[in-house]
Amino acid sequence: MSTEGQVITCKAAVAWEPNKPLVIEDVQVAPPQAGEVRIKILFTALCHTDAYTWSGKDPEGLFPCILGHEAAGIVESVGEGVTEVQPGDHVIPCYQAECRECKFCNRFSINGKPIYHFMGTSTFSQYTVVHDVSVAKIDPQAPLDKVCLLGCGVPTGLGAVWNTAKVEPGSIVAVFGLGTVGLAVAEGAKAAGASRVIGIDIDPKKFDRAKNFGVTEFVNPKDHDKPIQQVLVDLTDGGVDYSFECIGNVSVMRAALECCHKGWGTSVIVGVAASGQEISTRPFQLVTGRVWKGTAFGGFKSRSQVPWLVDKYMKKEIKVDEYVTHNMTLGEINEAFRYMHGGDCLRCVLKMQD
Amino acid sequence: MSTEGQVITCKAAVAWEPNKPLVIEDVQVAPPQAGEVRIKILFTALCHTDAYTWSGKDPEGLFPCILGHEAAGIVESVGEGVTEVQPGDHVIPCYQAECRECKFCNRFSINGKPIYHFMGTSTFSQYTVVHDVSVAKIDPQAPLDKVCLLGCGVPTGLGAVWNTAKVEPGSIVAVFGLGTVGLAVAEGAKAAGASRVIGIDIDPKKFDRAKNFGVTEFVNPKDHDKPIQQVLVDLTDGGVDYSFECIGNVSVMRAALECCHKGWGTSVIVGVAASGQEISTRPFQLVTGRVWKGTAFGGFKSRSQVPWLVDKYMKKEIKVDEYVTHNMTLGEINEAFRYMHGGDCLRCVLKMQD
Repeated sequence: MSTEGQVITCKAAVAWEPNKPLVIEDVQVAPPQAGEVRIKILFTALCHTDAYTWSGKDPEGLFPCILGHEAAGIVESVGEGVTEVQPGDHVIPCYQAECRECKFCNRFSINGKPIYHFMGTSTFSQYTVVHDVSVAKIDPQAPLDKVCLLGCGVPTGLGAVWNTAKVEPGSIVAVFGLGTVGLAVAEGAKAAGASRVIGIDIDPKKFDRAKNFGVTEFVNPKDHDKPIQQVLVDLTDGGVDYSFECIGNVSVMRAALECCHKGWGTSVIVGVAASGQEISTRPFQLVTGRVWKGTAFGGFKSRSQVPWLVDKYMKKEIKVDEYVTHNMTLGEINEAFRYMHGGDCLRCVLKMQD
Repeated sequence: MSTEGQVITCKAAVAWEPNKPLVIEDVQVAPPQAGEVRIKILFTALCHTDAYTWSGKDPEGLFPCILGHEAAGIVESVGEGVTEVQPGDHVIPCYQAECRECKFCNRFSINGKPIYHFMGTSTFSQYTVVHDVSVAKIDPQAPLDKVCLLGCGVPTGLGAVWNTAKVEPGSIVAVFGLGTVGLAVAEGAKAAGASRVIGIDIDPKKFDRAKNFGVTEFVNPKDHDKPIQQVLVDLTDGGVDYSFECIGNVSVMRAALECCHKGWGTSVIVGVAASGQEISTRPFQLVTGRVWKGTAFGGFKSRSQVPWLVDKYMKKEIKVDEYVTHNMTLGEINEAFRYMHGGDCLRCVLKMQD
């Protein structure tokens, strides 16, 4: 029986309040309006940005809401005027970093009470409704339990290297933080021909895994008395050509800039800092030729380039499977978040349908 | 009578102590050693960097010393192994931003007491000794009382636009601070085809003059209650393409970054901040696509490109005369500094020889 035009009642993980366990609820999902697409979410992964908003530290976070933004699914129905996707298409929802007007769309409700959505995606629901400009139609052969990762973390790291920094062959690269994004930076740097990829993390257990993603050397700041920027300058005869901060720590962002080589070194902020925090440095760092940049979603244009990334994965040109360390179900989402905060987990993918 | 190989006694303005009037002294200038060049300084201009070190606020400033770094003169003699210039060549001394080892060279003395030099140039002396790599040989037809300015401020502004930012035709540009460097930025931006050059200064008297250098609009932060970055964002439908901080004020550096357009706007720090001061911003400013850079001597390679700038001036492709607002003599140097701190003065050029 077609559900087109009908309200769908399905399961979703609802964040009723900051920092309280997510509750699996029966949620009503409205039919797509003009320009909107309703997606049956098959798999979603967890990301630290979900956890950050859930924590209540994001002043723009609204509750109750349905979190989640790294997912894959199948179009269930489309609203008026939607021409680029149709029911049955395999898609990856693409978050909009700056979507503000949609916070108040009434896409979700529970017994008539509106539930806010998140990042334009809210993939912690069996069904979700998104703008048609936020849907990337992908190869239907691609395994959705893997390519859901191409909705956020992996492209962010690869794109930081390829689009934002434009790392050249022979470059010396430093990666701060060896989670999913940092490993994707390492993978991107290796693909770009970097001669050295120095991974920096305070958890030495991460190094063995990082080698598989292209990290050639490992530095643990806890092993040194000197500031980490000085350790790296000493290791590299004056500094690295490119550095990437993949943690979201403003002190590390400063270190990442200051470990760059005078005259040309470029540092890219990839991690998301907590609200209200600021980066700082002496202006002399920039006057002497360093460049400070940042990136969101790795500078990829989501609708056009996520399908291209899926194709690269299908041709085995980029890794995805290797980032999936845990597989769980929607009902286990709170436990999944606990895994995510442990050092062993890269991405935990939730099976959303029974 | 040749002075080659001899100690020369000549007049120089000596800074005996921070913040005390400069004293015109008879100073002994050593003959050039291997790889060094002794220059008869004909004209020198004053720059705010001289004043900053003189003030005692620069922790690396050493006293007593001979300040000055924007000058032109004629080679008097050369040391062993110097092949690129010879006595009689017209030259511009080029400071080395990072010259640390030379602080203790004994090039100057007064009755046997060593006098420190400054920025590798010390042009507030009738004769000075510099490294041969710090000498740009120029067209002997060029008027030295004008092209001395090509030793610092004018190239710094032009190069910030041409080399560091690489401003494209049609760009919207903001220039913070309408002194010599800021006006050279405006001139460079106009030459690069900028569609709008917005000058920002708290002294409205500077606007009329600034028009001649390419500034098309003027904003006085004192006329607005909103932060200046917001004023500029509103004026430009989202922000400027390029901004340049030409003051040395870390709060203005932040405003200059934050008035840039999301996604691509680039801000260049040109001004020199006081020691120990720091720039800061929210990392979101960079994550959303702004780029923060800096420049020293506009990114020009001094020995090879200062002569090229002199040639451009001789072909009337760049202004120099227009920056010279005052002409005085070495003996009037303290008064000249007082003029420099007034808003009317761009560059004051001192005639160094009687």
